[in-house]
Amino acid sequence: MQNEPNFKKRNGLIVAIVQDWRTKEVLMQAFMDWQAWKKTLETKEAWFWSTSRQRLWHKGGTSGNVILVREIRLDCDFDAVLLSVEVWGDGLACHTGARSCFFDVYPLT
Amino acid sequence: MQNEPNFKKRNGLIVAIVQDWRTKEVLMQAFMDWQAWKKTLETKEAWFWSTSRQRLWHKGGTSGNVILVREIRLDCDFDAVLLSVEVWGDGLACHTGARSCFFDVYPLT
Repeated sequence: MQNEPNFKKRNGLIVAIVQDWRTKEVLMQAFMDWQAWKKTLETKEAWFWSTSRQRLWHKGGTSGNVILVREIRLDCDFDAVLLSVEVWGDGLACHTGARSCFFDVYPLT
Repeated sequence: MQNEPNFKKRNGLIVAIVQDWRTKEVLMQAFMDWQAWKKTLETKEAWFWSTSRQRLWHKGGTSGNVILVREIRLDCDFDAVLLSVEVWGDGLACHTGARSCFFDVYPLT
């Protein structure tokens, strides 16, 4: 039987990790509530729960950089999902205009 | 000036994503509190805050599959970190004995 994400653990949210399906670059991290999860499955585009704005969020809905979901994987305790994606539009996943949100290398001394 | 992770947003926690530095496979996701972050920087090994056990957790401390951190990146709003790592021991990051925790492909219909 297919496992389902567990929305009961973290105030109704699961962690979503967005990875480029070709380069495997990690592009961003966000959260999903049950509704975002269902919308993502329905549309094959990434929907999240915006914790800052406290509302459902269709990623790229305004910028045009919609995220096409090619594969979804659940983690072993079902509270995180890994989305393998293709970013439409200009291919920039980060709201700062970067391709990935993880552009800030922290120095290891 | 170097940006620092923001522990004020999510009950003192940031999201940590663990990615194999060579294959770029996403291996696991966990959380860090301030102490886990500091221990990770000090030791260059991954430390997390276990939300189930509510305690600091040295990943691989018992299994021997310690996670050597080669690079850390912050995301654009400083509430998530991406660790590029090498898994020691038998190279299995998941407690189930899998290499990655994300082995469960969810069917897209």
